[in-house]
Amino acid sequence: MKWPDHICFGGDYSPEQWDEATFEEDMRLFKLAHVNLLTLPVFAWAKLEPEEGVYDFAWLDRFIDRIWQNGIQVCLATSTCSQPAWLSRRYPEVLPVDIEGRKRTHGMRAFFCVNSPKYRERAAALAHEFGKRYAHHPALAFWHVSNEYGTKCYCETCQKKFRRWLEKRYGSIEELNARWNTAFWGRTVYDFDEIMLPTACNDDYRFQPAIELDYQRFVTDTTRECFLNEAEVLRSYNPEIPVFTNISGFIKNLDQFAMTQVQDAAAWDNYPAPGEAPHIAALKHDVMRGLKGGRSFILAEQSPNQQNWQPYNKLKRPGEVRRLTYQALAHGADTALFFQMRQSAAGQEKFHGALISHAGHENTRVFREMAQLGGELERLGGCFLGSRVGARTALLMDWENWWALENSSGPSRDMDYLDMLARYYEALWSGNVAVDVVNPREDTDYSRYSLVVAPMLYMTRPGVAETLCGYVRQGGTLVTTTMSGLVDENDRCVFGEYPGKLREMLGIWVEETDALRPEEHNGMRMLKGGLPEGAYACDFLCDLIHLRGAEAAAEYTDDFYKGMPVVTRNTYGQGTAWYIGTRPSGKFLFDFFSMLGSSLGIGCEVCADPGVEVTFREGEGKTLFLINHNGEEASAAIPEKGYVDLLSGKAVEGKCTIGPGEVLVLGKTKR
Amino acid sequence: MKWPDHICFGGDYSPEQWDEATFEEDMRLFKLAHVNLLTLPVFAWAKLEPEEGVYDFAWLDRFIDRIWQNGIQVCLATSTCSQPAWLSRRYPEVLPVDIEGRKRTHGMRAFFCVNSPKYRERAAALAHEFGKRYAHHPALAFWHVSNEYGTKCYCETCQKKFRRWLEKRYGSIEELNARWNTAFWGRTVYDFDEIMLPTACNDDYRFQPAIELDYQRFVTDTTRECFLNEAEVLRSYNPEIPVFTNISGFIKNLDQFAMTQVQDAAAWDNYPAPGEAPHIAALKHDVMRGLKGGRSFILAEQSPNQQNWQPYNKLKRPGEVRRLTYQALAHGADTALFFQMRQSAAGQEKFHGALISHAGHENTRVFREMAQLGGELERLGGCFLGSRVGARTALLMDWENWWALENSSGPSRDMDYLDMLARYYEALWSGNVAVDVVNPREDTDYSRYSLVVAPMLYMTRPGVAETLCGYVRQGGTLVTTTMSGLVDENDRCVFGEYPGKLREMLGIWVEETDALRPEEHNGMRMLKGGLPEGAYACDFLCDLIHLRGAEAAAEYTDDFYKGMPVVTRNTYGQGTAWYIGTRPSGKFLFDFFSMLGSSLGIGCEVCADPGVEVTFREGEGKTLFLINHNGEEASAAIPEKGYVDLLSGKAVEGKCTIGPGEVLVLGKTKR
Amino acid sequence: MKWPDHICFGGDYSPEQWDEATFEEDMRLFKLAHVNLLTLPVFAWAKLEPEEGVYDFAWLDRFIDRIWQNGIQVCLATSTCSQPAWLSRRYPEVLPVDIEGRKRTHGMRAFFCVNSPKYRERAAALAHEFGKRYAHHPALAFWHVSNEYGTKCYCETCQKKFRRWLEKRYGSIEELNARWNTAFWGRTVYDFDEIMLPTACNDDYRFQPAIELDYQRFVTDTTRECFLNEAEVLRSYNPEIPVFTNISGFIKNLDQFAMTQVQDAAAWDNYPAPGEAPHIAALKHDVMRGLKGGRSFILAEQSPNQQNWQPYNKLKRPGEVRRLTYQALAHGADTALFFQMRQSAAGQEKFHGALISHAGHENTRVFREMAQLGGELERLGGCFLGSRVGARTALLMDWENWWALENSSGPSRDMDYLDMLARYYEALWSGNVAVDVVNPREDTDYSRYSLVVAPMLYMTRPGVAETLCGYVRQGGTLVTTTMSGLVDENDRCVFGEYPGKLREMLGIWVEETDALRPEEHNGMRMLKGGLPEGAYACDFLCDLIHLRGAEAAAEYTDDFYKGMPVVTRNTYGQGTAWYIGTRPSGKFLFDFFSMLGSSLGIGCEVCADPGVEVTFREGEGKTLFLINHNGEEASAAIPEKGYVDLLSGKAVEGKCTIGPGEVLVLGKTKR
Repeated sequence: MKWPDHICFGGDYSPEQWDEATFEEDMRLFKLAHVNLLTLPVFAWAKLEPEEGVYDFAWLDRFIDRIWQNGIQVCLATSTCSQPAWLSRRYPEVLPVDIEGRKRTHGMRAFFCVNSPKYRERAAALAHEFGKRYAHHPALAFWHVSNEYGTKCYCETCQKKFRRWLEKRYGSIEELNARWNTAFWGRTVYDFDEIMLPTACNDDYRFQPAIELDYQRFVTDTTRECFLNEAEVLRSYNPEIPVFTNISGFIKNLDQFAMTQVQDAAAWDNYPAPGEAPHIAALKHDVMRGLKGGRSFILAEQSPNQQNWQPYNKLKRPGEVRRLTYQALAHGADTALFFQMRQSAAGQEKFHGALISHAGHENTRVFREMAQLGGELERLGGCFLGSRVGARTALLMDWENWWALENSSGPSRDMDYLDMLARYYEALWSGNVAVDVVNPREDTDYSRYSLVVAPMLYMTRPGVAETLCGYVRQGGTLVTTTMSGLVDENDRCVFGEYPGKLREMLGIWVEETDALRPEEHNGMRMLKGGLPEGAYACDFLCDLIHLRGAEAAAEYTDDFYKGMPVVTRNTYGQGTAWYIGTRPSGKFLFDFFSMLGSSLGIGCEVCADPGVEVTFREGEGKTLFLINHNGEEASAAIPEKGYVDLLSGKAVEGKCTIGPGEVLVLGKTKR
Repeated sequence: MKWPDHICFGGDYSPEQWDEATFEEDMRLFKLAHVNLLTLPVFAWAKLEPEEGVYDFAWLDRFIDRIWQNGIQVCLATSTCSQPAWLSRRYPEVLPVDIEGRKRTHGMRAFFCVNSPKYRERAAALAHEFGKRYAHHPALAFWHVSNEYGTKCYCETCQKKFRRWLEKRYGSIEELNARWNTAFWGRTVYDFDEIMLPTACNDDYRFQPAIELDYQRFVTDTTRECFLNEAEVLRSYNPEIPVFTNISGFIKNLDQFAMTQVQDAAAWDNYPAPGEAPHIAALKHDVMRGLKGGRSFILAEQSPNQQNWQPYNKLKRPGEVRRLTYQALAHGADTALFFQMRQSAAGQEKFHGALISHAGHENTRVFREMAQLGGELERLGGCFLGSRVGARTALLMDWENWWALENSSGPSRDMDYLDMLARYYEALWSGNVAVDVVNPREDTDYSRYSLVVAPMLYMTRPGVAETLCGYVRQGGTLVTTTMSGLVDENDRCVFGEYPGKLREMLGIWVEETDALRPEEHNGMRMLKGGLPEGAYACDFLCDLIHLRGAEAAAEYTDDFYKGMPVVTRNTYGQGTAWYIGTRPSGKFLFDFFSMLGSSLGIGCEVCADPGVEVTFREGEGKTLFLINHNGEEASAAIPEKGYVDLLSGKAVEGKCTIGPGEVLVLGKTKR
Repeated sequence: MKWPDHICFGGDYSPEQWDEATFEEDMRLFKLAHVNLLTLPVFAWAKLEPEEGVYDFAWLDRFIDRIWQNGIQVCLATSTCSQPAWLSRRYPEVLPVDIEGRKRTHGMRAFFCVNSPKYRERAAALAHEFGKRYAHHPALAFWHVSNEYGTKCYCETCQKKFRRWLEKRYGSIEELNARWNTAFWGRTVYDFDEIMLPTACNDDYRFQPAIELDYQRFVTDTTRECFLNEAEVLRSYNPEIPVFTNISGFIKNLDQFAMTQVQDAAAWDNYPAPGEAPHIAALKHDVMRGLKGGRSFILAEQSPNQQNWQPYNKLKRPGEVRRLTYQALAHGADTALFFQMRQSAAGQEKFHGALISHAGHENTRVFREMAQLGGELERLGGCFLGSRVGARTALLMDWENWWALENSSGPSRDMDYLDMLARYYEALWSGNVAVDVVNPREDTDYSRYSLVVAPMLYMTRPGVAETLCGYVRQGGTLVTTTMSGLVDENDRCVFGEYPGKLREMLGIWVEETDALRPEEHNGMRMLKGGLPEGAYACDFLCDLIHLRGAEAAAEYTDDFYKGMPVVTRNTYGQGTAWYIGTRPSGKFLFDFFSMLGSSLGIGCEVCADPGVEVTFREGEGKTLFLINHNGEEASAAIPEKGYVDLLSGKAVEGKCTIGPGEVLVLGKTKR
């Protein structure tokens, strides 16, 4: 497969929106800004196929030739995100039905049913046109299929297909009844055709967890088919060009481990809310890197300035775009692409930031910052592309667990999987512990990890608990938490003492789980045995734990379960299994993982001031990223010799300082 | 009619969800917990009738025989709450249409139209099967029809039936026009078939009070028919077995006075929100006892531990289930049934508390508490069953009033009938004044009451005002409030000076009513004449009152109506009529009813510490319940001699102490 | 045209709701209250046309004759707001489809599609009946068409008509694609019949600003047609009688400049929320006066007391109705009409205030206040009718700008045009600067104004910017603000440096606009040059401004743009153009306009205490209104001699006092 040998810098551009004079001016501006790749045309289906089977690609041919003459590559989008109005009008089956049962009318974008035969037919035909024309064009860097999939459809086509999907999954109606536990609330079915999609018309999307869970799997499966419908066409023309679709920042809808399995790279759109804490983007980058088992990913979109769709679209502060970009690279991105190159004249996103604003010239703050960044990336060349983050800590993340956990009724309505992952991640990130995000499966190999952290691993799919037990038995350290080990892949509770299949390894029994109101909390008292001293608060959920072999590391200070264990440690085989039966304060988690990091030797080798993010990427050489998130200058001690500042070319050794909001990228050839 | 001679203890169990091995284990556990009754099968229609007219009861036969061999009775549910999927599929008329006009699809539970002919046909057929098989089974204690009725349907069947219902109610379209005051906003109709159900499609459910009111009556009437559709079948097989349906805690939808008229007992499901003040459950128990004119009721469901569907499902604290159960018995319950005996494996309620949790054994806090309670109830035997609470205070409550009041537009959107009843009730309850909840009708006999309290008696149906006036004239004491006496049974305002037909008795004219914002309040200054001194606050609504014979007992301290009366007292015939023209603070109400209680001699004969709930049930003997809601020990002075602690068997005399959260049940043979 | 020669006092009365005895009593009460006009019958279509084409007007004939015998005139309503149920039933096309795609069912009011051919046919036929019968009746003062138009419909009729409307507007599909910028998000269309209405079924109402904007224009256009459908019939019978429809206080839905163009007078319903600041009603009155270019308007509805549909319907305080009425007259109203004369017996508005309450007699606070007011108005006679407010300050207001601005995505979700207008208006109003509300069009003549204020003039329609520039060039003073000059009439951004066509006149470039969260603010530091000293706060939006010829009058005190200009002043031709690049505090605006008012000589000649509203109306004579909004006595210095208190008849000179909440109306013959 053909991968770029430099950091792709540039992003979305819509030639279909602009005239020739604008093209000319933009080529001049792109050069000034060191743009080397354009993503296009994401939304031009209606222009490319003005009537069924009649294509007009001449304008696109000309445009791609022209940018290639200017040394710019193209990430070629299949434009299938917005079908033409004539398609919706002629074949209403293309339009989705929403969860309320409403047939959608043509409009908006991403308004199609992924299972519509007609949509698939026309999308594949369009992909053929793309393949035929551009598969061997020298400018072609990537294929970009559709855009931010994620529509859930409840139309008749989906209804029927879902029944067949279930039939295939379960084989017989008896098996489905058993797996869905339909005896509850009298939901026994005798025929697959009796099954209705879980919608707001039957409230099953909220009240029938097993069906909703399978529906979510079905959406992922069929969206993957829809992606492959185009991707396989494109691959048939040239298997060397990487194919992907970009993942929206709102990532819950689709199991991205399943989606990216059939993609050549993970790719995502990073739109942090204004003022969002920096570890959130770091976590999401690590998720993206984890999707393809640690392989570097495509940062497909960022905004060069404020967005338009946030409640309050604050300007990106000076230096903010640069910091966000280096953070992405530091966590495994190999590109720095932006939405958008030129601000659109009208429509929903007319006030979304762009390299070239409505003012139309280069004398803007945003253009200057982008051009500086483009120049730096050009200087960096391809030195760390394809290199890996050598993490020895794994954070488990699973979409099916996410769906099941948050769809479950009780014990608290504040169940938020991503938030809990982020809390654990933040504690590790604050200590600059490198983290791989790993999808727990039967065959997952944890052997490279000294520490595995599994917050709220509510659902243990077949083999998952066993694999984790094996890992600990052979010397690993596992940290898991309240709401773990409770259900199987159909949201059926595991019988016997909780936490089910994890119980023996953890050496505890969780008899009950109390739910606290947002304004309530309990306290944690550390017991002897290595944990930091001091008082910590906890809230959200409180497990009532009995020891079944483990030792109590901390106990509750309040309520009728005062004195019961809240944190436990169990020696299991050669390893250690920790259980945290509540949601502890961030301070506890930081202290806890500092202690664990020291004892496991997984801490960061660079000692830096608080607020300095430190990351390594290792390949041919070693690249060290230092990002100062503080408003003041900070310093870091580089333990190894031989590093060079890749932007200034100067050697760096020992203690170095990083200006407020600044970034250092140090490189070193591998010994 | 055959009533159990002991306190039924047990509750919902779903044999359709479990296998033989689980049955065996559960029989052992039931014995340990003193369970003597199981409610089942509430949701097994699909299992009992796998295809239309084909029945499979063999498993149920075996199960009922088996529990009876273990000495356990059955509360037999007709299972008609969840119709089978094949029924919905074959006869879509069975599925309801919601207020938004959406046809529901099969799913959830209680998703049927009570007026569907096909539903009724199949439900009655199923009831016949139950009747044939079990009407004379020795285990049979109760018939339990369907489950928590309350679905409002807006389908074509309902639309047509509603028109015929109106035709019958009003006789002519002219009468309907007059009663609905259709001249307002040009709503005159010339044909019953022009009438549309009040839905979100015409906003009449919010903006046309008269039609909405009649629709609510129609729903009650036809839901009652739907209950009778099964109940009459069951009674035809054995008239000796009590038949009921259980009332959901959300009780506004159906007029339960009308519903229970055709039931052999009132029965309800008590699910207090975590931390809810104890007088709320007390009030609801008294409502349930009031439904059948003071007859004891069935506590059909409680949770042995936390629920799953609250926002924050706090654990039931140690002792809480026991306290709640004795409170129910103290207020007139004759059973102590729980949802559920065994925690379901999956589905919406998998985290709902149960006697037997997923752990599956008896070594849990919840099992121990339940088993202790079961043992105690066994010891109490049937000593107070069927006995009555000898209240001399009546609190008026009327569903039609509730609907009309809260559907009325203005003067305040915070109109909350149940909340206002609860405020008045709390003042009485805090003083341990026994209260009967009474439905005010033309023929209600208030002669046994020294005090009648009628908060926000907005609607006075024909004869109601006259009967209340007669009661006062003959020496009774009435307390009524703002928002009383305003409209007739069609929500038409009573013309002339307010409060309409109550005006002469009260001796006042309410000229205007001011609405206060939540953050606003006024003050009340007590005038001479018996009322406690001191300053009180009031809020919500402030009536501007003129005296028309009454005397002012308190006046406003603020606003342009400062100095106008806010509380008035009028001598009418031999009696006294009080009017409270605002929503006073709880402190005022407590002081006010203390004063009134003393002067009327309706106070509690047991002098107890605050927070100790004291209740009597009187029948053959006299049973005295003392429930300490405090976190500390409290005491009470028992004035009468001869009481025995029914749990310990010890004699109790004079001052006794009750531990924190503890309960005393004292008994005495009637002299 | 025939206009009343006295202040019309009275309002809505529904003879269709009352019997003969009530009529008689009401005539007596009307006389006591000096009522001289009744508005009726607003909702009697069903009574007037009991079946298609069959009319019953006899009762109305009798009623109108009777009131005329009592010297009362009639404002005759065509009753077309609520169509009869038989019409909806026989012709379902009459019923609208809502934005969710739901076909409405008959009920509520104003539930018809303004484009329904059948509705229009029957409404016109009814108007003919009215015209035939009453066009020359001596009692007839006004024709009142329908009631509070504003329903948006999305039915098939509207869908088709909208396409034809677009075809007419744009001529070709190419032009539409260009103007709607459909290249964005791939929305290109090839046929007008591909265009779908912007609804919740395609989300275009939120996400496709250009189509939503045209839909809003379409609704105004076709609602105007619907008004004319009746108005032209009525005018054909007697062109001398003024025709209007009353504007709901929620005025955003329809462009009232366009609507009132075809009316003989602007007319509106003033329902301030309880406790609403008095400048809000003042602004709305000025808007109404502005609709017909400064001509006096009809105050069509007010409430004599509390409403029913507010969240908290506070009583109108003593004197409040009188103060509100004089405020309306002070700002250009020539009538004082009320909803309603008699409180309805039932229905949605039964608790809405009325002259005659349910008590039914005259001995109420409300009746006394109304009767006093009626007497006063009778005494005032017609002395100031038709006179004008001689404002030298214009406040620009534009419905299309309103729609476009608030439908735009970004930079802040708190975009509120009316609120911003009200903030600027308040600053002027507090200084008693008379203000005309003016719709900015290509041909607007600003020459009479010394100051033009244009807050958030986001959209500059063709010619608007040019006309404003011409005004400044010739010596005018313009104040405009952030979010101005950004888009054209299709919401397409103006390219080049912002603020587009206003840039040269303002002498600035707005490079970026930061959005602040509600809890954030920045500061403004005044620079030398005439502005008041001191520190002011600002919030909401902060423009980053570069000077392009203007001078900075104030700069930011915080954030990364600290020190950049926030207020600028530019000399342009003979005039001055100010730009305020943020939302300043009310204190700044007051100080700023005080400064400007002094320098431009547009301040009020009457020097009054704060809280005293001072307004002039000038015609044959001069009328001076002084309204004391304070709870204490206040004073004012009358600079001119020769004024007479029109209510007491006494001469007033020099300093005069006005009691708390009181009003003075002074008159003077023009010299």
